[in-house]
Amino acid sequence: MLRHLDEQLRQIKSEILVTGGYVERALEEAISALLNNQPERFNLVFDFEKKINEAHIRIDEMCLEFLASQSPVAKDLRLILAIIKINTDLERMGDQAVNISHNARDYLKNTPIKSLNDISDMTRDVQRMIRDALDAFVMNDSSKAESVLLQDDAVDEAKHRVFREFIAEIQKNPQVTGQALDLILIARNLERLGDHATNIAEDVIFAVTGKDIRHGSKTTDR
Amino acid sequence: MLRHLDEQLRQIKSEILVTGGYVERALEEAISALLNNQPERFNLVFDFEKKINEAHIRIDEMCLEFLASQSPVAKDLRLILAIIKINTDLERMGDQAVNISHNARDYLKNTPIKSLNDISDMTRDVQRMIRDALDAFVMNDSSKAESVLLQDDAVDEAKHRVFREFIAEIQKNPQVTGQALDLILIARNLERLGDHATNIAEDVIFAVTGKDIRHGSKTTDR
Repeated sequence: MLRHLDEQLRQIKSEILVTGGYVERALEEAISALLNNQPERFNLVFDFEKKINEAHIRIDEMCLEFLASQSPVAKDLRLILAIIKINTDLERMGDQAVNISHNARDYLKNTPIKSLNDISDMTRDVQRMIRDALDAFVMNDSSKAESVLLQDDAVDEAKHRVFREFIAEIQKNPQVTGQALDLILIARNLERLGDHATNIAEDVIFAVTGKDIRHGSKTTDR
Repeated sequence: MLRHLDEQLRQIKSEILVTGGYVERALEEAISALLNNQPERFNLVFDFEKKINEAHIRIDEMCLEFLASQSPVAKDLRLILAIIKINTDLERMGDQAVNISHNARDYLKNTPIKSLNDISDMTRDVQRMIRDALDAFVMNDSSKAESVLLQDDAVDEAKHRVFREFIAEIQKNPQVTGQALDLILIARNLERLGDHATNIAEDVIFAVTGKDIRHGSKTTDR
């Protein structure tokens, strides 16, 4: 029989996963709207962000209630602290999807400047990081979480590539400055989404193993 | 006589304030290095960020220990949850100061393009938000925290002004694209520092009043 505590934790984890799904959908809609020139899809992003914000508050309340009523220790306490942080990251990921939508909407108002292949590739990499981080969370899989950390460098490199490409574009053709800057900012938003996925992966590793691997600190049990 | 619980909370709060001081110094050094063309000062920013990261891990450990040993409820529990979130914000503010340093170092490698008055003004506004948010935290002052929320719009508007200014600059003179983009990204970093100060203020309001005012939600006691 499940302890009441386990049942509460299961419910909170399930809320996190639902919210993670909203984040994935919000990013997918924002980028599809950009790549397929379908600005009406941005409204879906704003709908998802609203759901994410509601879930953010609800999950925080559930965690507070859990801490107050169960006084968890050890592994359960680590898990609930990880969830509180993951919840914050998910909320900010929703904000980033909205930022992408604003920049993309501006971009689509002007003449497209060139192929968006690099943005599209970068998005796919970031989506994989998010998917893997959430999978690691649901499966308590610290190896999978570690694989997320390894993907972050490629995303950072992709961002630098986009920056260089669009700076060159501006220098060739200054009247596209506004559009190129929109894409540079979108690359920046994507990079930050990757950073949040990394944060989630680090929290999973901490929850599962008790090791704090942030800031390249010596891994210490706690 | 202080309860042991109060003494532990006092110590954790004091660590937060020390860390907040590092964040303020890191930002001050990063911007002074830029405005006074003193790239050697960027090393101080990296030193402060290291201290912030160490404090981040230490404070998290203290909070975990506090939750496990004291099983706080009600106001004490709200405060410790607020501290866990504020600690995360401070760590990311350190990252932003480092980002500013990287962008500013790039900027200083090239010919300066024009007056940096707008960046300087924007920095002063953001510094005030951070100072007020930390003061609100130390004084449990929810009115001061609310005043921080009101300052955020001005910072966002300043960022838009910087964006417009430097886009115009690039269009007039495309060979300054790299430098102008550095300044645009610095304005973006400053805006994010303001967002983190806002997050801290919201957490203070929650800790002090029990009201969750994020996402314009109805204020609900909890």
